[in-house]
Amino acid sequence: MSGSIKVIREGMIAQIVISNPTKRNALSIAMWQVLRQELSVLSADRNLRCIVVRGEGDRAFAAGADIGEFETERNTVEQVARYHEEIVGPALHALIQSDLVSVAAINGDCTGGGLEIAAACDLRVAVQGARLGAAVARLGFPLALGETEIMVRKFGFPVAAELLLEGRLLEAEEAQTKGLVGRVVAQEHFAKEIERTAQEISTLSPVSLGAMKSQFRRLLTNASQTTAMERAEYYDFASSADYREGRNAFLGKRRPQFSGQ
Amino acid sequence: MSGSIKVIREGMIAQIVISNPTKRNALSIAMWQVLRQELSVLSADRNLRCIVVRGEGDRAFAAGADIGEFETERNTVEQVARYHEEIVGPALHALIQSDLVSVAAINGDCTGGGLEIAAACDLRVAVQGARLGAAVARLGFPLALGETEIMVRKFGFPVAAELLLEGRLLEAEEAQTKGLVGRVVAQEHFAKEIERTAQEISTLSPVSLGAMKSQFRRLLTNASQTTAMERAEYYDFASSADYREGRNAFLGKRRPQFSGQ
Amino acid sequence: MSGSIKVIREGMIAQIVISNPTKRNALSIAMWQVLRQELSVLSADRNLRCIVVRGEGDRAFAAGADIGEFETERNTVEQVARYHEEIVGPALHALIQSDLVSVAAINGDCTGGGLEIAAACDLRVAVQGARLGAAVARLGFPLALGETEIMVRKFGFPVAAELLLEGRLLEAEEAQTKGLVGRVVAQEHFAKEIERTAQEISTLSPVSLGAMKSQFRRLLTNASQTTAMERAEYYDFASSADYREGRNAFLGKRRPQFSGQ
Repeated sequence: MSGSIKVIREGMIAQIVISNPTKRNALSIAMWQVLRQELSVLSADRNLRCIVVRGEGDRAFAAGADIGEFETERNTVEQVARYHEEIVGPALHALIQSDLVSVAAINGDCTGGGLEIAAACDLRVAVQGARLGAAVARLGFPLALGETEIMVRKFGFPVAAELLLEGRLLEAEEAQTKGLVGRVVAQEHFAKEIERTAQEISTLSPVSLGAMKSQFRRLLTNASQTTAMERAEYYDFASSADYREGRNAFLGKRRPQFSGQ
Repeated sequence: MSGSIKVIREGMIAQIVISNPTKRNALSIAMWQVLRQELSVLSADRNLRCIVVRGEGDRAFAAGADIGEFETERNTVEQVARYHEEIVGPALHALIQSDLVSVAAINGDCTGGGLEIAAACDLRVAVQGARLGAAVARLGFPLALGETEIMVRKFGFPVAAELLLEGRLLEAEEAQTKGLVGRVVAQEHFAKEIERTAQEISTLSPVSLGAMKSQFRRLLTNASQTTAMERAEYYDFASSADYREGRNAFLGKRRPQFSGQ
Repeated sequence: MSGSIKVIREGMIAQIVISNPTKRNALSIAMWQVLRQELSVLSADRNLRCIVVRGEGDRAFAAGADIGEFETERNTVEQVARYHEEIVGPALHALIQSDLVSVAAINGDCTGGGLEIAAACDLRVAVQGARLGAAVARLGFPLALGETEIMVRKFGFPVAAELLLEGRLLEAEEAQTKGLVGRVVAQEHFAKEIERTAQEISTLSPVSLGAMKSQFRRLLTNASQTTAMERAEYYDFASSADYREGRNAFLGKRRPQFSGQ
């Protein structure tokens, strides 16, 4: 297993670094789990004011899931349901549930699960040249309802459709005009701008921010109202031919031929 | 009766052509009904992957309703309720309900019911020079609740207000900055860009897209929760003086004088 | 007590002028109350078609609350609950409840409660050079749930987060690209553009606009579904150290040091 989640604390700011350099910071299941745990620990720390999430190095924020785990961990319907309901969903909701303001420092390509993490953060700042996308339909699987809900509620239906139903990869500048990121910063100023942003947030009232974050949560999520049975049916895709074809084509570096079966 | 809905199939892509060339592709009731039926047939066809909706020719996408039917088909409260609940609403929802990804190829002016069709599509690409609007308040009637819901949920309150409450007609470029259309393409590249987009969507997994389209639907519509009685009251506008004045002024090519009665 | 709300009627258009020139048009409690009352009177007047809200002079739209009242009127939990539930909330909802289309003529800086008023209007037009923000977290208090709901539903989560959770102050041009204002107009054309906009709206059908405004209302607000007890708990912030520190720092013209207590 490669990859890790690093936490760097400095004063009132915690940096979470998604680190899997040989795989463009792809997230393994173990990394998703540590991400959730670290967020839980950080969110309970009354000395902190702001969480910055970024990728290791200066090439990628996070490239989505570790494709190497598809065969072993995301094969059956049961495995896939567990992956979305118990691994990815809870990590994303740890960001949403936190009373700390979170900033996605999109220091490079931000795709799939990486874009989901960025979407679950409160604020997004991207470096010039970063690309954002979530072309899971090219890999043969959908997001889970709660994940799609975050994308749609944060970015709106038209932009979520370009990302999820058309499979577009957006350059940082287009992502900004479409509201995915709040601002785009040149590479040489990026680290400083993230630092400045986190410092600025740290001067704000935690009582005020915590109250408004709880309001944002309340306004954001309705998917929790679905029943377990309703959510379960979404994972039937894992028994489809498309799901296998998407993975096989990706692993074989060829274009997939989807049958819709 | 003039006008027709044409369907052109080519491989995994179906084009729906709104055709009423002498009336800027205005939609008659018969055309709305055929649109709904064709969408129902296409959506059941497992060989298809993508629906492109466009207007006949290179001047207009669709100019809204066929104004010639106002006197005969949209006169009484009962007729108007039927028009919105049984004609327009079901055609728009046939797009939303479809598991196929739909692209509005906005090849020219896109107003009134034309904009509603474009809004109900998943993706919108406009040609340079196209104008978009839904100034029904100038004609003396509101959209139905379910139609306004689509406009508000897809485009957001501020943009829906500019369209519906201010009656603005937006140039394609402004429509893009406001999120109404995903991109604007020059006339000479438009057909090719639409073709490329539909082909790209056709390579994606139908299982994945179908699952996410059902999620989008679930997140989009709440108006179905209204009671029939609640919906019925919206159609009382058809007995108002404004409703008559709007039509009469339009037909008489003069500015309307609305009384609010 | 300084400040007043002026109403200027001219034909079918009513202008509401927020006037407190020595305090950048800050709103006192008395002004909020008059604003609500005037909106109630104007909305019942069948001769009117459009409400324009602007600030006195050419420097500020409205600078939020009159900070001088913090000690006397917004000190205890009970006072703060009353301030949000009985003063600010009802004034904002008088705009939302009105069947008249409202235009925020943002003729200068528009912050705090000023931005809330602008957000509650249907349309927003800003003068070049105006700045928009709601950095209440710098003052140590949150917005009430119903107020945050308006900001989030009108502007979307990412922009509401930049305003409320990062405390950003946006220049008019950036506010336009982010959808806060529909358009930005140079100072020399501003008054004329507002006049033209209001006149245009006045030519539209009040029956049509009233019906669609009621639809917008229905789609906008869910916060009314919260219980009184749920809403009450949001006001506990008024007993926090942050709340005191924010006011004291502001009054002492120093940077606040928030403890999160």
